[in-house]
Amino acid sequence: MRLLIIGGSDAGISAALRARELDRNVKVTVLLADDFPNYSICGLPFFLSGETPDWHSLAHRTEFEGIDIRRGHRATRIHAASKTVDVDAGMAGSLTLPFDKLVIGTGAGPMEPPIDGWRSIGVFLLHTMHDSFAVHDYLENAKPRRAIIVGAGYIGLEMADALTHRGIEVTVACRPATVLSTVDAEFGRAVADELQHHGVKVCTSVEVHRITRDGDHLHVSGSNHFDQDCEMVLIAVGVKPNAALGAEAGLDIGAKGALVVNRKMESKLPDIYVAGDCAETFHRLLSRNTYLPLGTTAHKQGRVAAENALGGNRGFAGSLGTQVVKIFNLVIARTGLRHDEAARESFDPFTTESTMNDHKAYYPGATPLHVRVTGDIRTGRLLGAQIMGAWGTEVSKRLDVFATALFHEITVDQISDLDLSYTPPVSSPWDPVQMASQAWCASVNAFTTEKEHV
Amino acid sequence: MRLLIIGGSDAGISAALRARELDRNVKVTVLLADDFPNYSICGLPFFLSGETPDWHSLAHRTEFEGIDIRRGHRATRIHAASKTVDVDAGMAGSLTLPFDKLVIGTGAGPMEPPIDGWRSIGVFLLHTMHDSFAVHDYLENAKPRRAIIVGAGYIGLEMADALTHRGIEVTVACRPATVLSTVDAEFGRAVADELQHHGVKVCTSVEVHRITRDGDHLHVSGSNHFDQDCEMVLIAVGVKPNAALGAEAGLDIGAKGALVVNRKMESKLPDIYVAGDCAETFHRLLSRNTYLPLGTTAHKQGRVAAENALGGNRGFAGSLGTQVVKIFNLVIARTGLRHDEAARESFDPFTTESTMNDHKAYYPGATPLHVRVTGDIRTGRLLGAQIMGAWGTEVSKRLDVFATALFHEITVDQISDLDLSYTPPVSSPWDPVQMASQAWCASVNAFTTEKEHV
Repeated sequence: MRLLIIGGSDAGISAALRARELDRNVKVTVLLADDFPNYSICGLPFFLSGETPDWHSLAHRTEFEGIDIRRGHRATRIHAASKTVDVDAGMAGSLTLPFDKLVIGTGAGPMEPPIDGWRSIGVFLLHTMHDSFAVHDYLENAKPRRAIIVGAGYIGLEMADALTHRGIEVTVACRPATVLSTVDAEFGRAVADELQHHGVKVCTSVEVHRITRDGDHLHVSGSNHFDQDCEMVLIAVGVKPNAALGAEAGLDIGAKGALVVNRKMESKLPDIYVAGDCAETFHRLLSRNTYLPLGTTAHKQGRVAAENALGGNRGFAGSLGTQVVKIFNLVIARTGLRHDEAARESFDPFTTESTMNDHKAYYPGATPLHVRVTGDIRTGRLLGAQIMGAWGTEVSKRLDVFATALFHEITVDQISDLDLSYTPPVSSPWDPVQMASQAWCASVNAFTTEKEHV
Repeated sequence: MRLLIIGGSDAGISAALRARELDRNVKVTVLLADDFPNYSICGLPFFLSGETPDWHSLAHRTEFEGIDIRRGHRATRIHAASKTVDVDAGMAGSLTLPFDKLVIGTGAGPMEPPIDGWRSIGVFLLHTMHDSFAVHDYLENAKPRRAIIVGAGYIGLEMADALTHRGIEVTVACRPATVLSTVDAEFGRAVADELQHHGVKVCTSVEVHRITRDGDHLHVSGSNHFDQDCEMVLIAVGVKPNAALGAEAGLDIGAKGALVVNRKMESKLPDIYVAGDCAETFHRLLSRNTYLPLGTTAHKQGRVAAENALGGNRGFAGSLGTQVVKIFNLVIARTGLRHDEAARESFDPFTTESTMNDHKAYYPGATPLHVRVTGDIRTGRLLGAQIMGAWGTEVSKRLDVFATALFHEITVDQISDLDLSYTPPVSSPWDPVQMASQAWCASVNAFTTEKEHV
């Protein structure tokens, strides 16, 4: 059995490893357009901040025993009928590879911004290892004093942290009214405070229109009177799926331009699977495909695709949109639906925010955690949760308690039934996730009672 | 409606608060034998170490709005037929209080050790606030240089940490072959290493037989040639339920001497509920009552008892035996069944241990986590998990991901389906709980295949 995988990042390598784990006899070939198999793209901000001095350490792994990794091999065409793939191997010429089963894991690329002059020298998109080398060279050689980051999502804000870490004066400009729009505005405002506390200038409700180079500096202008000079611009306004190769082979295009798959990660063509950032993502709460490109999901989808390619019958259990980011000393995590996302669906969301210490205040070092719980007011079902607190206060895995409960379709009330661990230096007899859930239930009761009395 | 609660610690206060939350008109009275309502007994080691200088801060709360707290009121007899309770109020005389519903939350007390001379001056049991004041006075006034701790469970080891923190030379002596027998021996040995690393002498397989006072010091001797002098002995060899009051009223005695309850926390007598350390605990995995006295459980049971006393219909969801302890810089957490516990039941347990970094190694500060997974080899069902790692590496809430999954009867394999949060400073694309689960699955497959080939 020849399993051919296009793409050597999270989905592709995860598929390759799973295939080898399940069957030592399957012949696994991975086509890699660049030279960096299974590098941690999520680590780029830390390489650029200087916290991870050697980019080689960003490799998730360097051993690929039994897997034929072809670096610098770009797939140019998939022939579904003849079950072959044309490959451009650069200086090594071109070749055609046959397959019995194919996994497409071509990933995503940065969205091109609707900004005049974004191709100027000193302006960067950040997605690949090559992108980060270019940024790194510019940082080392041009030594920019001021940077403007366009976009305030995960990468934009991590880069604001990273460049500040390097001593660069940073401005973040974004279109929404609050930064980090993947969490509720209340948290977004707190994140903006944290950025400003560390010297980052935050300009929200700004649409950047134009970048012009003027001698040794760049001039950036946009709506809401945005008008600033700097020596470097980083644009991080989202990603789009690299779906062209699959589409040309006849695969369907679905949510946000991603390749359509079923939960077995099968495309509509026999023996062709799709996984990772180029594929649609089944959302467990919405029970339909969406587009939610995340490394964690890509790993899972690659694994599922390989298992099914080898004759298995495993469904992708679905994403809950669980995410976490560390910005300076603040960790912000979310799972499930935000209040506004839930309201757009067939839910009747109710959201409360609670603040409590991460552990008993009498033990040194307790700091506040902010916990937002969204549940359905009619059914009591948990819909989503967000936690924000200091690094080292178990924000991420606390959020994962919500994520694990959500995975199993729990009600907010039932969270109090969970048997969670407690000792004074790490929690309270009711963990903050439970206190926040109890606060939600009490608020819902008060709200419902009030409505009845009107 | 008059709700009378005997006991003002976790179960009793939790019941009182829940009753008030559900119905502002219910008349709630709490009888408290001592003067310390809702104090955090789990915090005593930190008071004695000096990390929590003021014992007042050990109070979980100091406001009990609408709850009639009667300090220094010891219930002496329950008359189930007439629905009254006799109370000894000390200097204030005795009285009889009527109830419509009664919650018994009399807690547990330290087991009396089978050691000659354990009542000598300088020898302490540690369970109540009064006990800890006695220890504190002795520490301040007698200034012991050397202490021997008998028992290596949670309290014994926390006190080893606490007394070392005060500069006292500590020896721990325990009967089992490894310390902390609530986790597997592999972890117990690592905990012993941590203790020794901080200067604590660890003597396992020792049964202490005799304590004698000889002038200004104590002499402690036991099996396995244990023979040591010190100025202070602390005995922490377990607790037993305070069940006498309930038993005298006609309630049944069950597991380990605890009062028998059903999942609604009802006793066999009408309108009398039992909760907390004096009651049996329904074990969710074993589907039967056991005795597992823990503050987290007491809070839950008190809450359930009050809800049902007020006409509700809520079942106690059950304990998984989830626990965590911090000893010096090490955090050790467990949930579910240990391998040997599972083997004694109708399970076919298989256990693996995996070691991986708490977060991506390329981001500064990564440290190893040790994760033990126990699952049933026939059904694949998760039975239990244990995690050990440095404080601040999300050991406790990571364990709670297992606990939450276990609550929902997941298989080990399905843990890879959970959508958990990842950013390089806190985790990996597959969280360590998932990597450890995958390692378990791979080991089971290898083991099964090997067996087939024999």
